[in-house]
Amino acid sequence: MPAPKKSLGVVLFPRFELLDVFGPLEMFGYVPDLEIVMLADEAGAVRSTQGPSAMAEHRLADGPQTDILLVPGGLGTRALVDDAAFLDRLRDRADRADLVLSVCTGSGLLARAGLLDGHRATSNKRAFAWASAQGSDVTWVKEARWVWDEKFVTSSGVAAGIDMALAVVGRLAGDEFARSLADQTEYAWQSDASRDPFARIHGLLGDEPDDPR
Amino acid sequence: MPAPKKSLGVVLFPRFELLDVFGPLEMFGYVPDLEIVMLADEAGAVRSTQGPSAMAEHRLADGPQTDILLVPGGLGTRALVDDAAFLDRLRDRADRADLVLSVCTGSGLLARAGLLDGHRATSNKRAFAWASAQGSDVTWVKEARWVWDEKFVTSSGVAAGIDMALAVVGRLAGDEFARSLADQTEYAWQSDASRDPFARIHGLLGDEPDDPR
Repeated sequence: MPAPKKSLGVVLFPRFELLDVFGPLEMFGYVPDLEIVMLADEAGAVRSTQGPSAMAEHRLADGPQTDILLVPGGLGTRALVDDAAFLDRLRDRADRADLVLSVCTGSGLLARAGLLDGHRATSNKRAFAWASAQGSDVTWVKEARWVWDEKFVTSSGVAAGIDMALAVVGRLAGDEFARSLADQTEYAWQSDASRDPFARIHGLLGDEPDDPR
Repeated sequence: MPAPKKSLGVVLFPRFELLDVFGPLEMFGYVPDLEIVMLADEAGAVRSTQGPSAMAEHRLADGPQTDILLVPGGLGTRALVDDAAFLDRLRDRADRADLVLSVCTGSGLLARAGLLDGHRATSNKRAFAWASAQGSDVTWVKEARWVWDEKFVTSSGVAAGIDMALAVVGRLAGDEFARSLADQTEYAWQSDASRDPFARIHGLLGDEPDDPR
C-alpha cells in the first residue's frame, strides 16, 4: 500500500509577494506524495505585488482541507488584517492543519487571527514594527531566519521562506533529501535558523552603527 | 518628461520550473519603469513542473515585443527543443530584444534556436550534458554562476537565476539599487558570476573525489 498523500495549501491574495509563494513551492514541489493546492477567496487568477498572476484552483471557504498551510506576505496583507471574514477562514484552516507556515509579513496575518498567541514567531525585518503590532501576546523574535514553535513555522522576509521550506522538507522527507534538493536546485541553503544578518542590516538590534555597511 | 518604460517578456511553457521564473521576477518586479509581460504559445494558465500554474497574458506569436526576454528552464524544455515553430518564435523575439536572459536549461532552448552560436554560455549543472548538446558552436562554461556575453546572459540552475537577475537589475537601475533590493528581500546575493560551488558538487570539473561531500 502506498504511503498516504499529504497536502499543502497555499493562501493566495491580491498583492501577494511572488517569491514568498514560489520559493517554498519550488522546494515543496519535489517532495514525494505531497500535493500542492492553490487557494484564494475566489478561484482564478490572483495578481501579485510584482504584477504577474498565479492561479488559485479552489476557494478558501470550501476548497479541500490540507495538512499543511502556507501563508505568504506582500503588500496585500496590509488590507487583509482588517478583513474579519478572511481572518475567520484563515483561522479555521490553520486550526485544522498539522503545520502552519508563513513567510515575511504572512506572520502578521496569523498574529491578527490570534493564531500565534502564546507562541514565538518572526517576520520581515523591514516591516517588523508593522507585523509585530498585529499580535501583542506573541513573543516576536527579531534575530532569526525562521522560528519553529510547535505547529507554527514563521520565516523572515521573502527569501528566508526558501530556507524555512527546506527545513520543513527535511522534516517531511529527511535531511538528506532536503540537502540533495538544495544542491539540485543550486541553492546555497542557509540551514541555521538562528543566523540572520538582516536583523542587523535593517537596524533591529539596537546596537548598529549609523551605517551598518 | 518621464524616462521611457522598458519591458521584460517572460516565456512560459508547460512544465516550466517555478523558481526559474519567479526568482528573477521577484527582483525585476521592483525595478522602476520596467513592465513585465507574461508570454506563452497561448494566453491563459500555464502549468509548471511543480504543479502550480501562472498566467500568460499574451501569445508569443503576436504579443507585444519586449526589450528584454527571460527564458526559464524546466522539464518542458526537453520537448520544446524539437518544436521548430516554437524555436522560430523564440528566435524572432530574441533577435529583436536588447537583452536575452536564460535560467537553467533555458539556455538549451536558446542554443537549439541557434542564438548562442559563437557565444559563451552556461546552464544547469545537473543537466549540463543535455543542455550543452543543444548547441555545438557554443563555448559552454562549466564553472560559472552566470555568463554575460554581449546581449546573452545565461545562468546556471534554478536559484542561480536570482543572482543573475540582480546583476541585470544592477545594469538597469544601478548597483546600489540592486544591493538594496537584495537586502530588502533578505536575499544573500552571490554577486560573483565566477563563483560556482555546484559545478564541483555535480562532478563537472573532472577533479572531484568519488564523494565530493
